[in-house]
Amino acid sequence: MGKKNKTAITPTRAENYSEWYQQVVKASKMADQSPVRGCMVIKPWGYALWENIMGVLDNMFKETGVKNAYFPLFIPLSFLEKEAEHVEGFAKECAVVTHHRLEKKSNGGLEPAGMLNEPLIVRPTSETIIGDSFSKWVSSYRDLPLLINQWANVVRWEMRTRVFLRTSEFLWQEGHTVHATAEEAVERTQMMLEVYARFAQEYLAMPVIKGRKTASERFPGAVDTLCIEAMMQDRKGLQSGTSHFLGQNFARASEIKFQSSTEKEEYAWTTSWGASTRLIGGLIMTHGDDDGVILPPRVASAHVVLMPIIRKPEDRTTVMAYVESLEKELKDKYYHHRRLEVEIDDRDIGGARGWEWIKKGIPLRVEIGPRDITDDSVYVGRRDKGHRDKTSMKRNRFVGEVTDILDEIQQNLFERALLFRKAHSINIDDKKEFYEFFTPKNSEEPEIHGGFALSHWCGEDRCESKIKEDLSVTIRCIPLSGPSEKGTCIYCGGPSSRRVVFAKAY
Amino acid sequence: MGKKNKTAITPTRAENYSEWYQQVVKASKMADQSPVRGCMVIKPWGYALWENIMGVLDNMFKETGVKNAYFPLFIPLSFLEKEAEHVEGFAKECAVVTHHRLEKKSNGGLEPAGMLNEPLIVRPTSETIIGDSFSKWVSSYRDLPLLINQWANVVRWEMRTRVFLRTSEFLWQEGHTVHATAEEAVERTQMMLEVYARFAQEYLAMPVIKGRKTASERFPGAVDTLCIEAMMQDRKGLQSGTSHFLGQNFARASEIKFQSSTEKEEYAWTTSWGASTRLIGGLIMTHGDDDGVILPPRVASAHVVLMPIIRKPEDRTTVMAYVESLEKELKDKYYHHRRLEVEIDDRDIGGARGWEWIKKGIPLRVEIGPRDITDDSVYVGRRDKGHRDKTSMKRNRFVGEVTDILDEIQQNLFERALLFRKAHSINIDDKKEFYEFFTPKNSEEPEIHGGFALSHWCGEDRCESKIKEDLSVTIRCIPLSGPSEKGTCIYCGGPSSRRVVFAKAY
Repeated sequence: MGKKNKTAITPTRAENYSEWYQQVVKASKMADQSPVRGCMVIKPWGYALWENIMGVLDNMFKETGVKNAYFPLFIPLSFLEKEAEHVEGFAKECAVVTHHRLEKKSNGGLEPAGMLNEPLIVRPTSETIIGDSFSKWVSSYRDLPLLINQWANVVRWEMRTRVFLRTSEFLWQEGHTVHATAEEAVERTQMMLEVYARFAQEYLAMPVIKGRKTASERFPGAVDTLCIEAMMQDRKGLQSGTSHFLGQNFARASEIKFQSSTEKEEYAWTTSWGASTRLIGGLIMTHGDDDGVILPPRVASAHVVLMPIIRKPEDRTTVMAYVESLEKELKDKYYHHRRLEVEIDDRDIGGARGWEWIKKGIPLRVEIGPRDITDDSVYVGRRDKGHRDKTSMKRNRFVGEVTDILDEIQQNLFERALLFRKAHSINIDDKKEFYEFFTPKNSEEPEIHGGFALSHWCGEDRCESKIKEDLSVTIRCIPLSGPSEKGTCIYCGGPSSRRVVFAKAY
Repeated sequence: MGKKNKTAITPTRAENYSEWYQQVVKASKMADQSPVRGCMVIKPWGYALWENIMGVLDNMFKETGVKNAYFPLFIPLSFLEKEAEHVEGFAKECAVVTHHRLEKKSNGGLEPAGMLNEPLIVRPTSETIIGDSFSKWVSSYRDLPLLINQWANVVRWEMRTRVFLRTSEFLWQEGHTVHATAEEAVERTQMMLEVYARFAQEYLAMPVIKGRKTASERFPGAVDTLCIEAMMQDRKGLQSGTSHFLGQNFARASEIKFQSSTEKEEYAWTTSWGASTRLIGGLIMTHGDDDGVILPPRVASAHVVLMPIIRKPEDRTTVMAYVESLEKELKDKYYHHRRLEVEIDDRDIGGARGWEWIKKGIPLRVEIGPRDITDDSVYVGRRDKGHRDKTSMKRNRFVGEVTDILDEIQQNLFERALLFRKAHSINIDDKKEFYEFFTPKNSEEPEIHGGFALSHWCGEDRCESKIKEDLSVTIRCIPLSGPSEKGTCIYCGGPSSRRVVFAKAY
């Protein structure tokens, strides 16, 4: 005792949270920095996770009648300018295409040539370019609702980037719908928020609060922005999916009109909603520990790794045959609509092998050596438990129960995260207490403090922005559920009818 | 009689082939032109087809050990310059990003601001940016082979565009692999060509010739380019997938080196291979007729449309109940690893309804009215037959045989296309005959003539480029199979050891 337990990741969360995050991503082999400022390379282990996220979300969208389509990467500058708040919101972070070829310079190098008449913006989001198509697709109320989704890359030129959480290019889906009435569009906005919330909780095992953004945090051009907010292990908030009611703003900008059933021409009502590779960052920061990533089984890049233990060369044939037959048996099983994904790792690299899979966060590690085979047993380690906490199980029992074990891990991760959020969420009614809550104590890692403060707010921009100025704390959301309750604004003491969620945020 | 049969598409193929193509795409609702020069909007009916194409190809790749990943959209200009032939090949068609934000002009409009130190190229293909990652991922022979694929959008600024066939932005997959030996890389190049050929023939029902490009048609920077070539109904060739052996060219450019098992540092051997949304254009031009698109069942956006016939309002409940129970029964069936996709179209728009589905190319149209229900029958139209050629079938028989019927259509489409190609492929050994073959007769639509001429070629660039100059005819490929045969070059009379495929091409 006395000696510090070694962890696979240095530094630990408590020592330096943001550096821990970078190291966890690196050790998991999920992504790399790229030589292009702020862009990331998503490696196979990270991309497989994204494929699973896409697969589940895509099905959930399609179940609500949404169809996929694809629209241009480029948006003419004049399109972006059509909605005043929208262009204002994105002008500071646009990649701009100005030329369409390269020409030899006198020194032999190449320079941009073939200047475009009008600059093109690499889409930061596609309301305006999709709106142009919608204006052609919609002419009668019979064409509505129009329910479209796009899986795509988008670019927002960020100055400070962090892999998965904030990158200049990221992958996402953006849903865009058109409706005949405001009510129907509002209903769709809420429906898609529900989809995101359900996905986050049931698949990412990430508890979320469903809420509404304040005016200052709204999507540029939206009438109303709904969101799901999760708490990371440094107690900061992470916005993990947003659903916007756009009113008629973008319909006016793009001339999306329809003939109503009473033969009047009307502007339509639109929504948009999106979730991105940021979810992967959220998942890592929700579940990861000082040994690396922990992947929730329902979206995990793979479910089980089989690690044959071969100490003597003459054991290889027997052990590998056993392992391969077990692989086959496992791969025939289904877990949440996909077949179990099983890896065999027979590299002879000692303890580094197991640690690599721990760092990658695979839910189940299974060791199999000659003695296990004699006993028809396997030696199972769960990623949600300590790395020494392994169990010998009869092979048949393991195969029979493997999907239950995975669901137990899934459940366990969710409950742990929920307990964590509860432990760091607090009603605060006193201004001094509020300021102390969001100020690091000397004894703490300066990045880990605070949490979700549920406090009253008068509804004024001024109080919100003062708090942001003083503490870098923002209103993450006004929760959709939860009781109305009379109180006084934590900043100005003005009247308030409900608590909102204050937190530092990514 | 005497009166011309009306077709759903005007003009017909024989009247004006390229206009027919544009009209078929439009009528099918698969894609739109976009306001962005040369970019297309892929509509839901077209995108569903692309999703099916992606699904099948992705599985085929994964079965060979390939994993997916994702790399940046942008390539620094200096990266592109690393391989001389490569940059030469793409410099004339590059979208160039020069700025990263927008700023207000004095007149209130916006202009590009925040100039980048180094221009970024929107990827036209990703060898150089992926090579940078590979140089970091590979250090020992134990890291090889490295087998990676990316699904992505790419941009090549084309001057003359045609939806699906040649667009400034298109969707594709690009596979990139790294190997320890030239032999292994060559083997992978061939393996992926086989995958493309199998996919084209078994899924797109598109007969293809596997071959090798001549030096002048090679991918810029490749040592060897293999390809599959199909014949469209205007008898032109369409390159539908390429697989490149890159030798050590890109390994040298990107410093992809590894320690061999004998501890020598060596440059690796790489391959790349791709197929794109162009396949959709090829599919349309292979199978489409004067009534519109014909979708091969194995990739069709949907398999069956059910069209209730409701003449009297009081029939609605009975007919819809019958149709919905049939839908349910059909959707439980599997056809080539996916569930049958069934649409119900109950719009009351008369004959236009059936024609819309004919133009969209759905394999099976099923009409169901009160009389059919009394007889427990359905009235089935196959898209590979004439629009009047419909059959009454007992419901149970239809449900029992539906997947067989789909496979019959699939087979039929393939055989038709193969017969067409055979009918317009000819051995030509005489120069005059060759020139006549590729010159439109007065009586013909000027776009439809010629075909595949299998002729001898001496191997010289000069003869190849003369023929291109005279006739716009190129060597589509040197077939991989087929006998070696002594002959004389169709242009210069020089010695040749095998026939090659000459054709006009997209």
